[in-house]
Amino acid sequence: MIGVGTGPGDPELLTLKAVRAIADADVIAFFTKKGGHGNGRAIVDAHVRPGTIELPLVYPVTVEMDKDGDDYRDAIADFFDRSAEEIAAHLQAGRNVVVLSEGDPLFYGSYMHLHLRLTTRFDAEVVPGVTAMSGCWSMAGLPLVQGDDILSVLPGTLGEDILAERLSGTDGAVIMKVGRNLPKIRRALAVAGKLDGAIYVERGTMATAAMTPLAERDESPAPYFSIVLVPGWKARP
Amino acid sequence: MIGVGTGPGDPELLTLKAVRAIADADVIAFFTKKGGHGNGRAIVDAHVRPGTIELPLVYPVTVEMDKDGDDYRDAIADFFDRSAEEIAAHLQAGRNVVVLSEGDPLFYGSYMHLHLRLTTRFDAEVVPGVTAMSGCWSMAGLPLVQGDDILSVLPGTLGEDILAERLSGTDGAVIMKVGRNLPKIRRALAVAGKLDGAIYVERGTMATAAMTPLAERDESPAPYFSIVLVPGWKARP
Ligand SMILES: C[S@@+](CC[C@H](N)C(=O)[O-])C[C@H]1O[C@@H](n2cnc3c(N)ncnc32)[C@H](O)[C@@H]1O
Ligand SMILES: C[S@@+](CC[C@H](N)C(=O)[O-])C[C@H]1O[C@@H](n2cnc3c(N)ncnc32)[C@H](O)[C@@H]1O
Repeated sequence: MIGVGTGPGDPELLTLKAVRAIADADVIAFFTKKGGHGNGRAIVDAHVRPGTIELPLVYPVTVEMDKDGDDYRDAIADFFDRSAEEIAAHLQAGRNVVVLSEGDPLFYGSYMHLHLRLTTRFDAEVVPGVTAMSGCWSMAGLPLVQGDDILSVLPGTLGEDILAERLSGTDGAVIMKVGRNLPKIRRALAVAGKLDGAIYVERGTMATAAMTPLAERDESPAPYFSIVLVPGWKARP
Repeated sequence: MIGVGTGPGDPELLTLKAVRAIADADVIAFFTKKGGHGNGRAIVDAHVRPGTIELPLVYPVTVEMDKDGDDYRDAIADFFDRSAEEIAAHLQAGRNVVVLSEGDPLFYGSYMHLHLRLTTRFDAEVVPGVTAMSGCWSMAGLPLVQGDDILSVLPGTLGEDILAERLSGTDGAVIMKVGRNLPKIRRALAVAGKLDGAIYVERGTMATAAMTPLAERDESPAPYFSIVLVPGWKARP
């Protein structure tokens, strides 16, 4: 099995190693929402050989489910178990399986749940990818940290108080999983005195990318692919 | 000007976009130590067209200088000023300049100091790259964070107390700039109760890469290209 990072969205941000792994694959597995086609799968489209077996792994739950509830936890654990078994069947048949992962596979990616379940029985290689945050701050031309600066990567799903506290105590910060957490993130940044300078980026490096100072962003829900960048440079040699 | 990330070391971890930018460049600028050939430059060697103008930017200082001293600060600021002017001269002559940066250009990279100096006068594009940390945790097959976990990126140049405090208060952590800070980093991890599980990686993804649990690493100085990974998974669906 090879876990392959597809990068943040621009198909040119695939690595040479990812392209080679995809072209050599017998089976391409990818995560997708119900009714979706898989964002990772779309990014690599130009490199998939005709005849490659496609294995969509369809998330069983929607964002409407309570993510802290036991039902959600059980449903998602069950989904990863079943997905791992589907992949295991191909591996046992001697097929070479690539699992696509947006950005970098081991950085908050669903791939890691398969990695954990399958590496006890099979060899796995991970091809790192360009993360969403790198894609977004590059598009914005915005360096967040240098020298002795600390960078904190904070999921926007954290509580407002924790977010505010962590934002106060860091130099640069990246807030992932923005979506419907946008109003809370904005409040936490205001409390931490860091709303000015924070940049909101959606669909970074994709054809439909957009960005704006967070203070000027309206309150409409943010898409799944959105991130907030908080610069933290102290001194500039 | 294009700032181009070269990834962590494996030449196959270049992106398609980086390869194209390098092949199209009139001038390739790269940072290098005195007497060195530039690690970034070596990574991209296969893609540089014959006839491309090479512009080595040679660091004026060695690791022996006191990095907190004014002399160091002045020498390095002066070096970035002069490097920016060398690049500006090529840009003014209408040449297309690529500046190489190991890993991702805007993630603790020297490139950002040129970016800051030149974007007031010239257009700049940044091609993101795979960071050293992504290369290293992929090589180790070690996921550091998932779900609601916080990831802290900590320069090993920070004081022992700050390191220990930050390590206690985070889920996953990456410690960059290890080198001669190795003994201090190990002590800080022990204080934070996180030495077990921490992984030391040197020259990640390069041909001479090596890794070991940090607790088992001897006290000899670590090379410049070394990093410490601290996993922080709380719950595993
Ligand atoms: C489950 S995490 C996966 C992160 C990914 N593995 C990486 O390396 O960046 C998904 C989050 O990444 C961020 N994200 C992914 N792609 C993005 C993009 N192109 N633009 C902005 N944010 C993005 C969003 O915050 C989203 O909620
Ligand atoms: C000035 S920072 C540049 C980081 C780079 N821009 C990136 O995106 O990762 C240099 C530090 O990166 C880390 N580093 C870079 N390449 C590495 C590698 N191949 N293996 C381990 N650590 C590496 C080391 O900690 C080193 O001190």
